[in-house]
Amino acid sequence: MHQISKQLDFESFFDSLESKLSCKWEEIFQSSKLIKVIKSGEISRTLYVIYMIETFHYTQHNARNQALVGTRKDVSAVYAKFCYSHAADEVGHEKMALHDVRSIGLNCAEKEIPEPLLETQILIAYLYWISCTGNPLQRLGYSYWAENCYKYINPVIEQLKQTLRLEASQLTFFLAHSDIDKDHFEDVKNTIRRTCRTQADMEAIIGVMETTLQLTASIFNGVYVEYENLMQGNSSKYAFLLNT
Amino acid sequence: MHQISKQLDFESFFDSLESKLSCKWEEIFQSSKLIKVIKSGEISRTLYVIYMIETFHYTQHNARNQALVGTRKDVSAVYAKFCYSHAADEVGHEKMALHDVRSIGLNCAEKEIPEPLLETQILIAYLYWISCTGNPLQRLGYSYWAENCYKYINPVIEQLKQTLRLEASQLTFFLAHSDIDKDHFEDVKNTIRRTCRTQADMEAIIGVMETTLQLTASIFNGVYVEYENLMQGNSSKYAFLLNT
Amino acid sequence: MHQISKQLDFESFFDSLESKLSCKWEEIFQSSKLIKVIKSGEISRTLYVIYMIETFHYTQHNARNQALVGTRKDVSAVYAKFCYSHAADEVGHEKMALHDVRSIGLNCAEKEIPEPLLETQILIAYLYWISCTGNPLQRLGYSYWAENCYKYINPVIEQLKQTLRLEASQLTFFLAHSDIDKDHFEDVKNTIRRTCRTQADMEAIIGVMETTLQLTASIFNGVYVEYENLMQGNSSKYAFLLNT
Amino acid sequence: MHQISKQLDFESFFDSLESKLSCKWEEIFQSSKLIKVIKSGEISRTLYVIYMIETFHYTQHNARNQALVGTRKDVSAVYAKFCYSHAADEVGHEKMALHDVRSIGLNCAEKEIPEPLLETQILIAYLYWISCTGNPLQRLGYSYWAENCYKYINPVIEQLKQTLRLEASQLTFFLAHSDIDKDHFEDVKNTIRRTCRTQADMEAIIGVMETTLQLTASIFNGVYVEYENLMQGNSSKYAFLLNT
Repeated sequence: MHQISKQLDFESFFDSLESKLSCKWEEIFQSSKLIKVIKSGEISRTLYVIYMIETFHYTQHNARNQALVGTRKDVSAVYAKFCYSHAADEVGHEKMALHDVRSIGLNCAEKEIPEPLLETQILIAYLYWISCTGNPLQRLGYSYWAENCYKYINPVIEQLKQTLRLEASQLTFFLAHSDIDKDHFEDVKNTIRRTCRTQADMEAIIGVMETTLQLTASIFNGVYVEYENLMQGNSSKYAFLLNT
Repeated sequence: MHQISKQLDFESFFDSLESKLSCKWEEIFQSSKLIKVIKSGEISRTLYVIYMIETFHYTQHNARNQALVGTRKDVSAVYAKFCYSHAADEVGHEKMALHDVRSIGLNCAEKEIPEPLLETQILIAYLYWISCTGNPLQRLGYSYWAENCYKYINPVIEQLKQTLRLEASQLTFFLAHSDIDKDHFEDVKNTIRRTCRTQADMEAIIGVMETTLQLTASIFNGVYVEYENLMQGNSSKYAFLLNT
Repeated sequence: MHQISKQLDFESFFDSLESKLSCKWEEIFQSSKLIKVIKSGEISRTLYVIYMIETFHYTQHNARNQALVGTRKDVSAVYAKFCYSHAADEVGHEKMALHDVRSIGLNCAEKEIPEPLLETQILIAYLYWISCTGNPLQRLGYSYWAENCYKYINPVIEQLKQTLRLEASQLTFFLAHSDIDKDHFEDVKNTIRRTCRTQADMEAIIGVMETTLQLTASIFNGVYVEYENLMQGNSSKYAFLLNT
Repeated sequence: MHQISKQLDFESFFDSLESKLSCKWEEIFQSSKLIKVIKSGEISRTLYVIYMIETFHYTQHNARNQALVGTRKDVSAVYAKFCYSHAADEVGHEKMALHDVRSIGLNCAEKEIPEPLLETQILIAYLYWISCTGNPLQRLGYSYWAENCYKYINPVIEQLKQTLRLEASQLTFFLAHSDIDKDHFEDVKNTIRRTCRTQADMEAIIGVMETTLQLTASIFNGVYVEYENLMQGNSSKYAFLLNT
């Protein structure tokens, strides 16, 4: 029942992950109004600020839920070390998201930031859930796509930068990640090679990869709907943005 | 009530920690039969093995409880990063303790190792407790003495090495720590400088430093009593050592 | 900022909760294909079984997340007692869901039951999340609608019973709850009266009430889509149902 | 290896628990200065207040750690229900301890109460530890002696009552428990009968019974030492008692 690791073909596994990711991103790019409005050069600062505040929210929890995986009794030393090291690298990244929106005029204290949208809360809750229960390796599925998303989203960020006339110093969140994540992605793959032992491990990674990318796409949609509501005067959460 | 950090005199604080530690170690060296039997060159392999197995037990939890501190909502990014980095450095150190006792003849699988003595369970339970509740900075009190104990215990280890005729390769646990811990100790002091802000923070660190050193001394005593019981035929826990 | 409880008008609050619930259920009844297919007398046993297995999954966690609220440091004795008592009353209810589907022919061991659908996982993860963080009173919002749903769903259950020709002894999950929940609902309202002190408490309850009902409606949809996929030969998760 | 429950002889098991408890209490009565000073009619109000404040501290956590056992994945429905019901019954009992010392003149707000002594912290930490890890049935060992201690300690309480001239209304903590605990003790035994299945379960219960009673005896000692220090002007923790 438990296949031995040497029989697992990791390179085919990574190929299959890439192909799933490629399809999923394609689907997101086709259906996401947030992505479309960025690509067409029509995004407003307000919409971007809403997106970055939601990003701030979930980013705040990434180091925490990553570290929690390492504290489980059912993890190897190799995997625990990966979890803690990556957690150390992710600490405080939410502050970059906040810095970036402040650099374009958001002027509110951290405690005045509204609560996360439901879609964002769901991603946060789900990440704690899959970090604390189930196959402990499954969180690698989140890292796999998150540390490897820049080839998909760089053109979108580039367009965003032009439309909103942002300096590199105003895009610290995306640029810092796009730098760090090259090494991180290699770490993720090496950790998968060193820790996955069974088909069930691989399936758990695939499951969380697909689910967390989909929940992130749901945040894109939630952000867009919130923005539309705000423009129609129906959002109380983000109404403070209209006064700034 | 809350003093501002700039008014805190960290160098005096560290001096006072050193002087407390110096007294406490002196007291332990005076009263601990385990230490005395090592210093007098009379320690047996069996007694050393019991001590190292108990060390194995609590060491197993150090990375975990260290990482848990970082996941709390009431910690700064600087402190969370310290917690995760140190946790990453501590992962798997219990395996060195096990390696060392195996190198001198212990021949049992990890799952055959007996449950920790009560004194060891108490240190483990207490470390989780002070890591998950109370002032989050207080766990620095444990790191402060643990990363800084070699100037006190090196002569003891040296004597142990001679008595039991151990090679350096059989003392990986102590030697690895004595190396790593120089840098770690500087990190601990820097983290205290960067994160402590109030008298209450300092007192919390002192409290946990004194308590965890005392609980460690209790393990020394528990180990010695267990050894005496074993020699008198009254220990079922470690009886398997007599057959090896 | 914090209103005193005596100024809170609980009866108006409950009226407003009822009116929100009534709208939300109306909306669910309009849009849910699962509900429509039950109401039209066309539900198949297979679709019902899928729904009950997903119900089994999240029900398993209700006592746990309810009890966890009581263990938080920021709850009153009154509220902690409510949490533990209700948890005690909810223990093992998932077994009734399983009993009911077994009574109509499901023949698989508990460990052979497939993992929950994503929508079900999201409700589970969200309930732990809102139980362990945020305003501790907010979980009352989940109890409020869950202990008070029978006036909305009884006609649906009645139709289900007729279509599938179920005996009362095969509907233990719904019938037991519909009995217990009258008292429970009074408890929930009394607990709100005794513990809510601020407008923020009330808003937290409203938020979780609306969100968890919506996430439950998402399970209805997830179940229906899964069923459609199964009928089209595209579900591997529930394929085992076709062979029974 | 795993004995079947029907082969377990619970009545002999309870007899052996009683005989262990009887010995242990005998030993405590012989060695505890706190008990001696009560029995000899020499206890002062101050010493009693220190004891009750430490009792207040650990009692505060009993419902919480009891409930946490029920939330574990490795417990049966029968045992989870016991855990939550008992937790519900234990909620807020620490307030009785506080009421009793207030009734004899302690005049301080709850937040002015000093932190628990180390011995008390150790019991608290240990109870969380054995509730969250290891054999989940082991916490029954704590309940076993705690719900069954009145036959041992009633004469001590009676003497205390006379010496300090306390009304029944000033001994609510002990009297309420001594009432409730008769039923509770039967529940504990029934739960052991219904849930213990192996020799290992029984040993885990014995281990925690002996350990937690010993840690409670350590609190007696810690309280007495603290009182002596206070009388000699060496306790800062409880110095406020001298001014009341």
